[in-house]
Amino acid sequence: MTIEPVAVYSTLLHEKFGLPRQAGLAGSLEGLVSLRGNWACADSLRGLEEFSHIWLIWGFHLNRPSGNRTVRPPRLGGNRRTGVFASRSPFRPNGLGMSAVEIVSIDFEKAEIKVKGADLADGSPIFDIKPYIPYSDSIPAASPGYTALEWKKLRVVFPEGIDRVFAPERLEALGQILSLDPRPHYQDDPQREYGLLFADRNIRFKVRDGVLEVLSFEERS
Amino acid sequence: MTIEPVAVYSTLLHEKFGLPRQAGLAGSLEGLVSLRGNWACADSLRGLEEFSHIWLIWGFHLNRPSGNRTVRPPRLGGNRRTGVFASRSPFRPNGLGMSAVEIVSIDFEKAEIKVKGADLADGSPIFDIKPYIPYSDSIPAASPGYTALEWKKLRVVFPEGIDRVFAPERLEALGQILSLDPRPHYQDDPQREYGLLFADRNIRFKVRDGVLEVLSFEERS
Repeated sequence: MTIEPVAVYSTLLHEKFGLPRQAGLAGSLEGLVSLRGNWACADSLRGLEEFSHIWLIWGFHLNRPSGNRTVRPPRLGGNRRTGVFASRSPFRPNGLGMSAVEIVSIDFEKAEIKVKGADLADGSPIFDIKPYIPYSDSIPAASPGYTALEWKKLRVVFPEGIDRVFAPERLEALGQILSLDPRPHYQDDPQREYGLLFADRNIRFKVRDGVLEVLSFEERS
Repeated sequence: MTIEPVAVYSTLLHEKFGLPRQAGLAGSLEGLVSLRGNWACADSLRGLEEFSHIWLIWGFHLNRPSGNRTVRPPRLGGNRRTGVFASRSPFRPNGLGMSAVEIVSIDFEKAEIKVKGADLADGSPIFDIKPYIPYSDSIPAASPGYTALEWKKLRVVFPEGIDRVFAPERLEALGQILSLDPRPHYQDDPQREYGLLFADRNIRFKVRDGVLEVLSFEERS
């Protein structure tokens, strides 16, 4: 079956490195769903203002669809293999992602939905948008499997002056993203410097003893 | 983008008529997810036994993908138009459905997952299977929009002898399906007879004053 994007996603994160590993983890991170082609009109969205959340069905465009039957979830330390259908890994058959995100506002004229809490990278193609329906989508008592394991969050320390560059809500989103520990699961080298691209700035940081220290935030050259 | 089925769905409902309009509405209705091709092995499902629910991303194969920007949700009496992205209508851009279903059992050897509560018809192609993760998927406080409107359930009256044909759990599922009122929203003719195909039997019924009476349940000829 052939599917075509109905919208495209824009946000401050352009690379895989630093992307929240699930929707809802960086609740303050905003992004924009812009309808495309035939769908780019107010009619397609009529009535969506009644809902607070939507589902995005989208493509992991930074990963190629994978033929691997097993993956190694970061939540399991990257050591244990599970079936691809027992994981939300981006390395999967048809490269389809699925995320519940909060609606911030809808611009019917521009056919745009501002959302927050998404785990999509900038430029991701969106193949469908559906309203979140609590009576069929929300199952609080569902067994979380290995996702019940605690994800130890980092304490984030920003350098002085960063609040002159980022507005408070952007800084909050950046703090959330960094607190999720973007490092590869197998690395724990306190000397190592990492760089994360956020809002066209190169955020350099180190991690030691559960504390992530931001070293610099220069403009992307 | 081209996507290929990873599995196929089998169940007792073969036609659109009578399909629950959302996952979870007919909680006793069972079905089977059978992995296909490269994915048909125990490895693909390894670890899924830790979870209680899965998402199916699947194709509305009984409807063709639609270019219409608006639809008329049955929940709104079929009179009010809403945007396709403000509805879960099967008439949608890429013909993709999304359903959270309960795992009944997993046969790793056969690469099959028995589930219940699905709203897929027999033969539906499945493009992805993901574990349900409550911390990111379950949003009980999400605003339900127009889906908060009460769906008036019918009282179902079965004829004598039907329990000799259907096992108790199948009869329960049939009762749930019928109680959801499968009639088109614009019809309320107490004289009219309807036929619903369930488990290869033609279930004939009438509806009057909120009571659905099953008239016969003959084998499909």
